[in-house]
Parts: sequence; C-alpha cells; structure tokens
Amino acid sequence: MTTTQNHGLDTRDRLIEGAVGLLHSQGYRSVGVKALCEVAGVQKGSFYHFFSSKEDLTLAALDRSWDLFRTDVIEPMLAEPGDPASRLRTIREACLGPVSEHHADPHRPHGCLFGRLAASITAGEPLLRARLAEIFTEWAALLGEGSEGWTALADILGRLVLAFTVDASEVVGA
Amino acid sequence: MTTTQNHGLDTRDRLIEGAVGLLHSQGYRSVGVKALCEVAGVQKGSFYHFFSSKEDLTLAALDRSWDLFRTDVIEPMLAEPGDPASRLRTIREACLGPVSEHHADPHRPHGCLFGRLAASITAGEPLLRARLAEIFTEWAALLGEGSEGWTALADILGRLVLAFTVDASEVVGA
Repeated sequence: MTTTQNHGLDTRDRLIEGAVGLLHSQGYRSVGVKALCEVAGVQKGSFYHFFSSKEDLTLAALDRSWDLFRTDVIEPMLAEPGDPASRLRTIREACLGPVSEHHADPHRPHGCLFGRLAASITAGEPLLRARLAEIFTEWAALLGEGSEGWTALADILGRLVLAFTVDASEVVGA
Repeated sequence: MTTTQNHGLDTRDRLIEGAVGLLHSQGYRSVGVKALCEVAGVQKGSFYHFFSSKEDLTLAALDRSWDLFRTDVIEPMLAEPGDPASRLRTIREACLGPVSEHHADPHRPHGCLFGRLAASITAGEPLLRARLAEIFTEWAALLGEGSEGWTALADILGRLVLAFTVDASEVVGA
C-alpha cells in the first residue's frame, strides 16, 4: 500500500475526504460503502480495515469537517472586527456560498454537511445523532450565549435547508 | 376493490396518508414503493394504478401536507390576536411539538416533512425540488414580507433541523 497516492493522502484520509464530499452532495441515505470506496479509489477490503461501517466512516467525516470548519471558518470570522450581526452575516454567507467553490477545495468543507446529515438520520443511527448534537451544541455556544447561540445557529441551518430548493440569493440576506 | 376500508379512505388517499407519515419519520431516501404500499395496506399493482413513481406519490403527499398545514395550523395562528413575535413563537412550537402528538392524528401533519425532504433531495429530483421551493415561497410570504418572511421561515426550519438531534426544549425558545 502506498501512502503517497492521490495528493499524498493515505488510504484512511482518502476515505474520509471522499466521504465528506459525497455525504455533502448526496446525503446519508443514498450513499453506500461501495460508492464511498469508489470516490476514494480504495478497495472494499481496505475500507473494512479502517472503518467498521458506513456510520463509522461518517463519524470520522463529521469530526474532520467540524474541526476544519470551526478552525478555518467560524473562529477566524468571529475574531474579525465588526458588530455581532455583521459577523453572523459573514458566517451565514460562508455557509451558503456556491457549492462549487467549496467542492473545489475538499479541505474547506462547510456547514451543509451537518444540516443535511441531521435531517436525514433516523432512530437507527444513535451515534450519528449524538455526535451531531455535540457539534451543534459547540457551534451554538461559539455563536452566542444560551438561546442567542441557538437562534443564530437555527438561522444558518434554516437558510441552508431553504437553499437546497430556493435560489440562495433569496434566502441569504436579511 | 373496496373504497371504505381503513377509516373510509380510498386506495389513493390511503397511499397519500401513509406516505405523509412514512416520509416524515423516515425521510425520502430510506423509503421505497414497497414500504409505501405496506404502510397503506395496498398491493403494488394498485400503487402504479394511481402513481407513476415514488416521486409522484411524494408530490401528492407534499400537496396534501401543505394544504392541511396551511389551513389547519398557519392561517388560524396568524389570525390570532397578539404581536407578530408571539404568533411566530406559537407557529414554531406547533412545528416543533412532540412527534407522537402529530402522529396520533395523520390529518394534522406538521412542518418537519418539508424540511426533512428539502435536506434529503438531490439534483435527481427536480420536480420535488421545484414543489418544495413553491411551498417555501408561499410559507415565507405568509410569515412576513420579503426578507422578513424568509428570516421567520429559516428560524422555524433551522430549529426543526436542530430538533432532529438536540432536545427540542433547548431549541424551541428564544
């Protein structure tokens, strides 16, 4: 096994990076282990060497996305000058920006993945549900104290849901 | 074929009612024609007599849900006395209320179905996407003019997404 293929990422990393992109564009339900292997250029046997299931890889993809999103997008934006409302608007715009922009750089995933996954899990994925709840709780706390943080996060996630169907330019503003 | 089985609903109605409940609890991806027939107590052959595909039935389920939700929930609440903020809070609570309460009465579906479907469709379902966009546009216009309506709707949908993972009592307030 070489560890320098495909932009120098090793197999585990390639699976995680591929999962971030595929889960983001396709959601959780329509993606199987086969597709996750194909997008990463990895044999199915290798998959189970690193992950026990699709849910297991999805948890790793969530952790990767959240770490990058928090450190690359949210924290720098919160540190910028300006009033809270304008900072929130900047974060919202980053989340709702053109998908192609984000897909061009798999190292910069954005918020859609979390909202999409949250809306597609069922009672059958308690680990995913619990990890998403942790991420949302951490994210809300970064955006504001108590109910203020939840309101700001609900605003972002709600606009993301709307942007799946309605032209994003209509729903980003306000 | 009798048309009076199952609470007097005919076959087409039973399929639609069943689809509303199943799509709401399971999402679009994990539900197939087989499950939609089973929940309605309908043979697969009868399904294709009424609907050409899962997407076709889902469109009918969306129309049914939206008609009932608009006339039974949103419009009566908007007509109640009080300031706009308290009316919005009432609508939000109705959307985020206990699932069991809504499931107990299939004639009173709630907003979850729209948010869940919006977050689970992909580019492969243009008709669903277009119908959801129409519903969201109509819904936003009921809640407020221009960006105000979109903001109010984003708030509701975002709290719905959060409530899939985080305890609803944490995210309903504010």
